Amino acid sequence: MARVFNFSAGPSILPESVLKKAASEMLDYQNSGQSVMEMSHRSKVFESIIKSCESLLREVMNIPDNYKVLFLQGGASSQFAMIPLNLMNGSGKADFVITGQWANKAYQEASRYGQANVVASSKDKTFSYIPELDKSKFTPDADYFHICLNNTIYGTRFAELPDTGDVPLVADISSCILSEPIDVSKFGLLYAGAQKNMAPAGLTVVIIREDLIGKARYITPTMLNYKTHSENDSMYNTPPCYQIYICKLVLEWIRDEIGGLEKMKELNEKKAKILYDYLDSSKLFRGTAEKKYRSLMNVPFVTGSEELDAEFVKEAAARGFVNLKGHRSVGGMRASIYNAMPIEGVEKLVEFMKEFEAKHA
Amino acid sequence: MARVFNFSAGPSILPESVLKKAASEMLDYQNSGQSVMEMSHRSKVFESIIKSCESLLREVMNIPDNYKVLFLQGGASSQFAMIPLNLMNGSGKADFVITGQWANKAYQEASRYGQANVVASSKDKTFSYIPELDKSKFTPDADYFHICLNNTIYGTRFAELPDTGDVPLVADISSCILSEPIDVSKFGLLYAGAQKNMAPAGLTVVIIREDLIGKARYITPTMLNYKTHSENDSMYNTPPCYQIYICKLVLEWIRDEIGGLEKMKELNEKKAKILYDYLDSSKLFRGTAEKKYRSLMNVPFVTGSEELDAEFVKEAAARGFVNLKGHRSVGGMRASIYNAMPIEGVEKLVEFMKEFEAKHA
Repeated sequence: MARVFNFSAGPSILPESVLKKAASEMLDYQNSGQSVMEMSHRSKVFESIIKSCESLLREVMNIPDNYKVLFLQGGASSQFAMIPLNLMNGSGKADFVITGQWANKAYQEASRYGQANVVASSKDKTFSYIPELDKSKFTPDADYFHICLNNTIYGTRFAELPDTGDVPLVADISSCILSEPIDVSKFGLLYAGAQKNMAPAGLTVVIIREDLIGKARYITPTMLNYKTHSENDSMYNTPPCYQIYICKLVLEWIRDEIGGLEKMKELNEKKAKILYDYLDSSKLFRGTAEKKYRSLMNVPFVTGSEELDAEFVKEAAARGFVNLKGHRSVGGMRASIYNAMPIEGVEKLVEFMKEFEAKHA
Repeated sequence: MARVFNFSAGPSILPESVLKKAASEMLDYQNSGQSVMEMSHRSKVFESIIKSCESLLREVMNIPDNYKVLFLQGGASSQFAMIPLNLMNGSGKADFVITGQWANKAYQEASRYGQANVVASSKDKTFSYIPELDKSKFTPDADYFHICLNNTIYGTRFAELPDTGDVPLVADISSCILSEPIDVSKFGLLYAGAQKNMAPAGLTVVIIREDLIGKARYITPTMLNYKTHSENDSMYNTPPCYQIYICKLVLEWIRDEIGGLEKMKELNEKKAKILYDYLDSSKLFRGTAEKKYRSLMNVPFVTGSEELDAEFVKEAAARGFVNLKGHRSVGGMRASIYNAMPIEGVEKLVEFMKEFEAKHA
């Protein structure tokens, strides 16, 4: 079988050139006589990999010097606890915008450690939009203000960032990191599970302003303290070495093959436009997210008939368009078109959708 | 350059047949058209991988049905907190045997959450032995009793298990899991970072008796609660999929190519004997661990001269025997001869040691 077009929401498609390089280096990384999987994390050869990965990420994302980059484990789900344990230590309050299931989990976990306030929610319409924010509802002395910048399940994203003043803005960027430039200096902390745009599952990247480190509560496990990892350059214990290696290859691909995040954004906008334009013109399919808040990465859509949705997903898979089934909380379909999805994949998907529409008109 | 003989203490050597298989399946796992790195963890194809991995582990280790197998992240270092947070919830006491740096870290982290008692320590002789245990020092109502079964840095292992009666015995088996049969029923909880005998770094395996699940304290982060992972078959959030896949391949190698853990033990004993016999006969080198407690997996040794040690490590590396430098707390050399180290690697190392000895006699 040939390679499929994989529209999975994550773990998800990786650049083919990266996979080919990883396969070719599997038994012998750059004449070391070892696989990256086998290397001591304290060896010079691995040290150069993790350092390259960090400096590439800093270069590609233009991360200011007063931010630390941490390579952790445990996924965004671990950050939901790690953030309040480390940051909710001043007023003990934090603000949350509930734009989906993940934002809600971040809120619920924080509620166990302090006073978590819901500033706004879009639950009333199955999270199909980003709610307007009323600044008078912000907690002035909050320890942080949390958003989920791109909502994987519902296909929405913040069109503009909330102005939180001196309150550190904290954002889950798991499903949009590296998809376009982002002004890191507007945030106190950014975090992302790597399994969408960066690497295989098992790596979590945290970008944190230095002054936010070192305030963890006493109950914080050593491994959940940002200070532990910051002081040890993410090598307090053995990091997920192979993911860090793949992340480095992906960053090289973005910088050298794509040409950086501005170019990446252009490509992603082009891909998204092909799909959204078709959805807007189709008489069978329609996108479920409000236009203003449409994600560049995750495109949920429905036919209006559950049976037809199921038929579409099944036929699409048979034609090599896989993982198009929507999240169970939304139903229908979802095409995740992350960085590594080639434009050809989106074009061919739309061709197939047109064909399907013609048959069911 | 050809493949080297990698004596790293972890991450460490993997079976060459496993690496070859992983390379060959990198772009297309079993006609799925995807890399395992790219698969949705909720897909049928990945589900079959994680289920196979678990059932293989149960089969190879002969794990009783009343034990859960959890595939987690964060390394043994995360278990140091996870164990007291989940288990230290009865009397709030636990007993520890301090046989090295890792055992000590487990003790220190537990001290933050309850009354951690040191039953015995071998710190007086740089952890070169396992201390005798005086049962009168055991805490009768302890919530658990913690040991590190094999001490990676110092090359020692428990020759027999402590009899802790009704107190659950908890053991870090990171550097000896799968090296020989183990009677799981004697333990309440076993845990291991996978990066020695199982898989690349980034996977932690926990084997826990069911009745010990569900007692976590309120402050326990959701992701550090065994119940979370047990109830969701290690799929509460995205697991480290690629490591689980490699672990499955390693388990297939143990079962099908080696012939199971009894055979694995025979092989490991044979390899260790070659090295220890030479150390015992050498006039230049000597092993640093007490004979009775010698590890099958980690063999530390010295020449008695720091300069000669450094020269040996350097010359060995040039000849393709890499990562032989001992841990900084012990000095000298350490040869980790995990499952995947072929007997040929140990034989050739000893040949080289003899050559080096002849030159420096």
